[in-house]
Amino acid sequence: MSGFIIRGNIYHTPVIGSYEVREHAFLVCENGKCAGIYEELPDYYKDYPLTDYEDALIIPGMVDLHIHAPQFAFRGTGMDSELMTWLKEQTFPEEEKYADPDYAHLAYGIFAEKMKKSATTRAVIFATIHKEATIQLMELMEETGLISYVGKVNMDRDAPPALKEKGALFSTYDTIDWIDDVRTQYSFERTKPIITPRFIPCCSETLLDQLGEVRRLYDLPVQSHLSENPGEVELVHSLMPDTAFYGDGYDRFGLFGGEARTIMAHCTYSTKEEVERIRKNGVWVAHCPNSNMNLASGIAPIRRYLTRRIRVGLGSDVAGGQTESIFRAVTDAIQVSKLYWRYIDPKARPLAFCEAFYLATRGGGSFFGRVGSFTRGSAFDALVLDDSSDLHPQPMGVRERVERAFYLGLDTSGIIGKYVAGRKI
Amino acid sequence: MSGFIIRGNIYHTPVIGSYEVREHAFLVCENGKCAGIYEELPDYYKDYPLTDYEDALIIPGMVDLHIHAPQFAFRGTGMDSELMTWLKEQTFPEEEKYADPDYAHLAYGIFAEKMKKSATTRAVIFATIHKEATIQLMELMEETGLISYVGKVNMDRDAPPALKEKGALFSTYDTIDWIDDVRTQYSFERTKPIITPRFIPCCSETLLDQLGEVRRLYDLPVQSHLSENPGEVELVHSLMPDTAFYGDGYDRFGLFGGEARTIMAHCTYSTKEEVERIRKNGVWVAHCPNSNMNLASGIAPIRRYLTRRIRVGLGSDVAGGQTESIFRAVTDAIQVSKLYWRYIDPKARPLAFCEAFYLATRGGGSFFGRVGSFTRGSAFDALVLDDSSDLHPQPMGVRERVERAFYLGLDTSGIIGKYVAGRKI
Repeated sequence: MSGFIIRGNIYHTPVIGSYEVREHAFLVCENGKCAGIYEELPDYYKDYPLTDYEDALIIPGMVDLHIHAPQFAFRGTGMDSELMTWLKEQTFPEEEKYADPDYAHLAYGIFAEKMKKSATTRAVIFATIHKEATIQLMELMEETGLISYVGKVNMDRDAPPALKEKGALFSTYDTIDWIDDVRTQYSFERTKPIITPRFIPCCSETLLDQLGEVRRLYDLPVQSHLSENPGEVELVHSLMPDTAFYGDGYDRFGLFGGEARTIMAHCTYSTKEEVERIRKNGVWVAHCPNSNMNLASGIAPIRRYLTRRIRVGLGSDVAGGQTESIFRAVTDAIQVSKLYWRYIDPKARPLAFCEAFYLATRGGGSFFGRVGSFTRGSAFDALVLDDSSDLHPQPMGVRERVERAFYLGLDTSGIIGKYVAGRKI
Repeated sequence: MSGFIIRGNIYHTPVIGSYEVREHAFLVCENGKCAGIYEELPDYYKDYPLTDYEDALIIPGMVDLHIHAPQFAFRGTGMDSELMTWLKEQTFPEEEKYADPDYAHLAYGIFAEKMKKSATTRAVIFATIHKEATIQLMELMEETGLISYVGKVNMDRDAPPALKEKGALFSTYDTIDWIDDVRTQYSFERTKPIITPRFIPCCSETLLDQLGEVRRLYDLPVQSHLSENPGEVELVHSLMPDTAFYGDGYDRFGLFGGEARTIMAHCTYSTKEEVERIRKNGVWVAHCPNSNMNLASGIAPIRRYLTRRIRVGLGSDVAGGQTESIFRAVTDAIQVSKLYWRYIDPKARPLAFCEAFYLATRGGGSFFGRVGSFTRGSAFDALVLDDSSDLHPQPMGVRERVERAFYLGLDTSGIIGKYVAGRKI
């Protein structure tokens, strides 16, 4: 039994569409979980160590459902091209370098350090096809204190020679080898493997079939990309003409929700049938608005997903997205939802701040279990923000201060405390 | 005669659509103007004092063609509403406070300090209707070392009582009084007045007519808003049903280019006729993509304007825009141009990085004369950026480093030198 208390101005969104503010309140942690929020501290907790953050803001940690660690090196560059060109010219040449463990150690070290300092407390991460580098990344992520899933990527077709694994069987074998190594030789507390077929254009049906079996055998979750870009959707249709829609190509191999806890990034161009399957199978949608702008992909119809009670979280999608900041993903999600409403569907009400905040916390957090708010029993993932350096002449309430912290990107300079499952990092 | 030299990695865009990189080059300043870029320093300059910024980046200063100083206080808050509601609920209540000189001094002090630290070297600024507060703002801007135009706002209709001036004549009289005061009692070197009718919904025709005359008498430039939002455009049409288009309502009173050097912010919904008049009259368009997203206004057709050789610069439009960062305006301009291409006009090629960079420097800079690049004879407005804290494992060229500095928003932490017209600030 271990417990402690932090105090400050609390903002969280236990339910989508509303928020709770508790000013100068005590937030109690017991055994890594939230035990309650109190304006007056009950006697029972009087002996718990207290950190008083005074006028600072306390919010749940951010959850990043989609980020590519090996692309971090070139984030914010090469933005003048679209998805398929960008993959060939920017992404693949960089990912090839991770065959070299020295390079991987250097590059992933920079990535992990930035993740540690970021607002993100939990992340779901793509590595590359390289087993050794993927394990290096997992070791580095474990050291950050963040909780994450990391995937060794599978690719056995339509990739440059250095990134094309030598056939489906080789790719699957390497994946099993990686999972076994992680299970037997490492005792990661916070870093778990996830099955990661890159996307259908890079994976043969044989490979998808085998990965589905590996997933079942090891009972692992799944992550991949879905309906990101019109050209990509068309390509998938030509590669698997007998599928009802793009996601059906994953689903027929047990890689699309149901028993397989699954994240699909983007879902920008999902058809009505695909959306219905996403809903039915309980697939998490990783909404990556920044990437969807940078790669000229489009705007995902998030209001439509929320109305259908589909699970939605946010992803930074570095390096289609330029930054690891989920604060930025929140405001981007709001901004593109306004353009969607204006130009594409006047019935799709733009996201309110508290809704986008929910997506970044409870929405994505639900992939990890009871994560993303401060309700009793939730994991104690918390950020403490000092926003006092941005002066303002007028009084400002807690709700406004939180909104401002996101729009001004105060996660780059204002984080003064970060807790993951009750552990200060 | 005074001269000095700075050295570093130079990037600028003298012509739209291309860029020039000069590595570890000398940039010479003489009498506040650029005298040349040299890899080898000519003997003639050997005795000039040299600041060697080593591996840092040197770029022209950013120009902000549209920013509201009194809205700075609430930037990044109240973003869940559209233009007309936002004006009534967020903007007007804040602007009323500037009747109080103490409040104005406090608030404008915060604003000026942030502008000084920002990447912006030149700005065109809206104040409020209040003469005294507007002069306070001009004094504070003068102290920053930035070069700016500041406008006392005119509003004689459709505004809350505290912001509605007591009739056109009173508004005009106060404007003349303000200009005379500025001319006779202050000797601002860097801060000039600009005629600033808020927008047609807030200005009677009588007022616009009188302001046109004041402008001619004093030979001043003009700034206002144009065709920002569909609801606003409709309102203007109902207020002035005999005008051919929104901008015609300014033009008939001599407030729309031609002899009157004029900036019109937004131009998101300009009709074909309006665009043609903008071009013919040489009006500058202040493109404010961040604001246009936040207020759900839409996306201005910038490619269309560039093809027609219309003058375009960027505006932060704080507080419709959330931040004073023109770095952010550059990447926003690129991102929304990609969505415009995807959803609205497949012929409107997205902006390349170097094109958006041009808009932020030479594009807006041309309003101030020969400003915005390092060509010989241009004003010596320069920023020095240290991007070394964002580590990368791979080599990166100057062009990529500049692009990355913008996408990562390094203007918040990376500015190590700022020069305006040859003056270090």
